[in-house]
Amino acid sequence: MKLRLATPGPTEVPQRLLLAGAREIVHHRSAEMEALIDEINAGLPPLFGTGSPVYTIASSGTGAMEAAVANCFSPGEEVLIVSNGYFGERFQAISRAYGLTAHVVESPWGTSISPREVADAHARHPGIRGVLVVYSETSTGALNDVRAIGEIFRDTDAIVVVDAISGLLVHPVEMDAWGLDVVLGASHKGFMLPPGLAFIALSDKAWTAVERSAGPNYYWSFQRLRQFYPMSSSSPAVSLLLGLHESLKMLGEEGLDAFRERHAGLGRAAERALVALGFSTFIQPPHRRSNVITAALAPEGIDTGTLLKTLSVKYGVTVTGGQAHLKGKLLRIGHVGAADALDLCAVFGALEMALLDCGHRFTPGTGTGEIVRTVHEGEN
Amino acid sequence: MKLRLATPGPTEVPQRLLLAGAREIVHHRSAEMEALIDEINAGLPPLFGTGSPVYTIASSGTGAMEAAVANCFSPGEEVLIVSNGYFGERFQAISRAYGLTAHVVESPWGTSISPREVADAHARHPGIRGVLVVYSETSTGALNDVRAIGEIFRDTDAIVVVDAISGLLVHPVEMDAWGLDVVLGASHKGFMLPPGLAFIALSDKAWTAVERSAGPNYYWSFQRLRQFYPMSSSSPAVSLLLGLHESLKMLGEEGLDAFRERHAGLGRAAERALVALGFSTFIQPPHRRSNVITAALAPEGIDTGTLLKTLSVKYGVTVTGGQAHLKGKLLRIGHVGAADALDLCAVFGALEMALLDCGHRFTPGTGTGEIVRTVHEGEN
Repeated sequence: MKLRLATPGPTEVPQRLLLAGAREIVHHRSAEMEALIDEINAGLPPLFGTGSPVYTIASSGTGAMEAAVANCFSPGEEVLIVSNGYFGERFQAISRAYGLTAHVVESPWGTSISPREVADAHARHPGIRGVLVVYSETSTGALNDVRAIGEIFRDTDAIVVVDAISGLLVHPVEMDAWGLDVVLGASHKGFMLPPGLAFIALSDKAWTAVERSAGPNYYWSFQRLRQFYPMSSSSPAVSLLLGLHESLKMLGEEGLDAFRERHAGLGRAAERALVALGFSTFIQPPHRRSNVITAALAPEGIDTGTLLKTLSVKYGVTVTGGQAHLKGKLLRIGHVGAADALDLCAVFGALEMALLDCGHRFTPGTGTGEIVRTVHEGEN
Repeated sequence: MKLRLATPGPTEVPQRLLLAGAREIVHHRSAEMEALIDEINAGLPPLFGTGSPVYTIASSGTGAMEAAVANCFSPGEEVLIVSNGYFGERFQAISRAYGLTAHVVESPWGTSISPREVADAHARHPGIRGVLVVYSETSTGALNDVRAIGEIFRDTDAIVVVDAISGLLVHPVEMDAWGLDVVLGASHKGFMLPPGLAFIALSDKAWTAVERSAGPNYYWSFQRLRQFYPMSSSSPAVSLLLGLHESLKMLGEEGLDAFRERHAGLGRAAERALVALGFSTFIQPPHRRSNVITAALAPEGIDTGTLLKTLSVKYGVTVTGGQAHLKGKLLRIGHVGAADALDLCAVFGALEMALLDCGHRFTPGTGTGEIVRTVHEGEN
């Protein structure tokens, strides 16, 4: 059985990138690799909207989140955590592990954070050293307005730390213009690579926080990253860097605007198809939805746990369900990176088959037809 | 843009086989390669329904067709060619090139050959040394009854040469039981490999013909194949043999019955989907259709040349059209090898988009819905 990935990440890696990463290991101090790392270091900052260096480390996205906490704050310091899903909660857990005092602005899963509430929380806690926020919350598909949040803290001493791991590339990130101080990314989302690389961009304001921080950190040390730059502070993940070099070329060939339009089109098509099949959109206006995944609540009587299992075991398609209280209710279809409309046709073909298996009644072709219709309308 | 192949061959090669073929080149006289070739030589005959050796050569399928002509007959000898499509015509061209006198039993494109007409032709030309027939005629999607043709010649001196290049694996081939004398295969159809290998199986009766033949031949020489067996008479295509070894494992894991049922299901789904979209089935009963491809005539006003170009340029999907007088009218969708129902969902998604581009009117999801319905019905 063929396996198909339609998750928020890892995503399907195009053969071109798999082959680039399958090359023999080149030593990272070789002239060839140094030239290639220079190109990577030149290619990343524009994607973050920054003139500052972007550091690449061997780690998952969670490592980058921990690195930000471990480098920018000290035990006992106050931070504000903006949380409307699973990854907002992860920022809380990491902050607890590092002994920070976290004030949480919580918003229900399925909503976007209100910048006004963030400003109010800041007013209540003027001593915070920073705010930690997730851009695209992949547990729900909500997009947070990090631009407005950046604006709130621009003229304060508090830094803005953004987990842009899934949102980067798919949605605009203008780090310098929006006043964001730490922006985190990872390889297995829009970059279309296997997991294993994380990206960290730091503003001058962030460096002030780093220099003041008591840590503790070593592998995560931003100061070591800066000291060894442009090379890596530890052995770099060579295969993934070879892939990243090629990924930047692919992104350049497609162009960021086209990349974003493609993802917006996929999100629109997936949402319409889910609605046509009787699902209800999880993110409702005025809340903003991410184009990384499309999340929807299953029709009455359909358990998404059973649906996911059928999709995976019988049809080889991996999509994700709801976490925590949304388990069994939510369905999340990922379409980030190399996914195209015809992949969605295959994924929705399997979804329709699995829904029929689960006893749901509808005319076959209802979902796939919406994909075809949306793509065709989008072009004409 | 992602590229998707839905042609009668080359077909999409599963990553498992690509990786097997991407290994370093092993010398063909090494102990490892000799053991692997022994396993290949043991694995192929059951797929041909024979107890005789199956020879593997570095060549396309056409090379195997030429080898059969060059080894089994002599200039000036009479043969009967059964022709109902492009590959039947190829047998005629090769026979002309080798100076044979060919009597042709022709049947219109889109029909299966009538075994009775073959018997009648034999009665008119009792001096023929052999009959050449295509099993699955991929230019039209017709399947010829090679079993019945084998029966006609069983107790005669004439040998039966079968081009089973696309039909092998997808449809049963019982060479010994059906009295077939030369059966030809190739790597890039049911075997799911890249093009480059051809297979030749020979009965004892075929060897009598070979020993009598005046050639000319050298690379194609069956006597050299026998002399060097189990090794190759020339440098073997090592990468493809590495892939073939893995392909035989994959076929063994799926099982031939399941492999055939899968292809029958894909043929049924593709035909229903095409009919639902306004196409008309090209092969009508009592003529038999091959499960290698599904061929259908386009609805009034749709030029399949334009359609193919749109599919390829705009959606990255390669399907094939009609050859000769069917150019612009016929559409042929391949689903041989590793193709599955979700691949068909993607291909039909693209076909629907391209049909909308060409101005054809229908409810989007009409074709993909038939795929979903047929697969689901087939399972329940």
